[in-house]
Amino acid sequence: MPTRWLKLTVSYDGRAYAGWQIQPDKPTVQGTLEATWQRLTQESLRVTAAGRTDAGVHALGQAVGLQTETHLTNDDLLRGLNALLPNDIAVSAVEDAREGFHATYDAIGKRYRYRIHNARTPSVFERHYAWHFPQPLDADRMHGAGQGLVGRHDFSSFETAGSERPDSIRTIHELTVERPHVIASLRDANSPVAENLAYGNTNLIAFEVAGDGFLYNMVRTIVGTLVEVGVGKRPVEWPAEVLAARDRRRAGQTAPPHGLFLVQVDY
Amino acid sequence: MPTRWLKLTVSYDGRAYAGWQIQPDKPTVQGTLEATWQRLTQESLRVTAAGRTDAGVHALGQAVGLQTETHLTNDDLLRGLNALLPNDIAVSAVEDAREGFHATYDAIGKRYRYRIHNARTPSVFERHYAWHFPQPLDADRMHGAGQGLVGRHDFSSFETAGSERPDSIRTIHELTVERPHVIASLRDANSPVAENLAYGNTNLIAFEVAGDGFLYNMVRTIVGTLVEVGVGKRPVEWPAEVLAARDRRRAGQTAPPHGLFLVQVDY
Repeated sequence: MPTRWLKLTVSYDGRAYAGWQIQPDKPTVQGTLEATWQRLTQESLRVTAAGRTDAGVHALGQAVGLQTETHLTNDDLLRGLNALLPNDIAVSAVEDAREGFHATYDAIGKRYRYRIHNARTPSVFERHYAWHFPQPLDADRMHGAGQGLVGRHDFSSFETAGSERPDSIRTIHELTVERPHVIASLRDANSPVAENLAYGNTNLIAFEVAGDGFLYNMVRTIVGTLVEVGVGKRPVEWPAEVLAARDRRRAGQTAPPHGLFLVQVDY
Repeated sequence: MPTRWLKLTVSYDGRAYAGWQIQPDKPTVQGTLEATWQRLTQESLRVTAAGRTDAGVHALGQAVGLQTETHLTNDDLLRGLNALLPNDIAVSAVEDAREGFHATYDAIGKRYRYRIHNARTPSVFERHYAWHFPQPLDADRMHGAGQGLVGRHDFSSFETAGSERPDSIRTIHELTVERPHVIASLRDANSPVAENLAYGNTNLIAFEVAGDGFLYNMVRTIVGTLVEVGVGKRPVEWPAEVLAARDRRRAGQTAPPHGLFLVQVDY
């Protein structure tokens, strides 16, 4: 068979994995995907991904690139991979990609979501998928503060040390902080279903950040910084001052990994 | 201390438990709650619950009754129980109840939710909290069909055999089937957050059923019956015919337990 380049769209629940990137003696999403590919196709290969998510981080739309000589069709691969993968990893699309496609280097934009469960008592259903934050948070204040980070900037204040990225200039296209309301339908906007479709939980705050690329722990550090504004400890102008300082020691804590989702990658 | 009657509101993720009701040598929610109560208060007691949920079934608002002589305040109990319970069980409220309160017998109404994830490929985030149903379902058709079950009826067609309940007359006050839309806020109804707050999943169908009481497996059998209408296999009038037949063999399959949530109990 001739060589083909493919793009896979992959979702995973990160809680059982030591992150995306393959490591010896640890379960990783990349390692599991490559082993499953080999079981299905007999082909040993290395895949690339748009973002090397950390341990505990989830993905709704991780993009994965690979070069294959398999005779299986894209639809066969979709069904075969889902049949063989553990049920905390799923492939939602298998598509042809251009020759030489590389999921990491070809990405032109990414979107992340960070979820906070803002309630006094923890939720048994959210504990692995949101940061439980018991003090009241003002989402509108955080949204306002976040607008000071939108645009092209040096984000070194929001980068965890030890990264190998050559520069820290990135562009955030959009940053929103909202308490989403769930409405059931136009038929009955007051339906009990409205009280959070998911599990009756109305205490969620969703951060959405879209940009051309992200530094190591950048989204989690932005969330940890905005939370200081949301809780009233810092003024709305503070995150922009942290940005201008270009000093990681000025920013807030790094929010925990299990609230973070890689939502979408653009090429 | 004098005896007090209390009502606890409890949520749990049912996946790790062999149901609510205490059993020897199996993890149950009741057993875990009673053991935790004893650790906290040194008091050995038996609790009552509004609904004895089956293995794998979840609760957002299970009501639990008990009679205690503890010196701990309701707020101490709330915090102490949550500190000692495993993190898949949480107490959201501890309230005084009237003398002689019994969570089972005093309940005058209950509300259940059943969630279907209606998409070709399974969701890694919904797999324990929704029935994955790959064929397209028409929620409006199911809603229409469900209206034939609302009211006071003999629901023996929807009762799994082996139940010890003396009669099978129950009243369904409300039954809705909807594909809830999630909107982020008035600020931006087209926000990407809108694509399901929970985990980016817009393929959910929520059944809500409220009534004065429910027979064994009644909600799950109603869902399994409505799904035959939703998939186009049966006409909209069929569930009402099944009801009138008073014969369990006429109804659809019993939907799997992991999509079911006990949402609320009224007293």
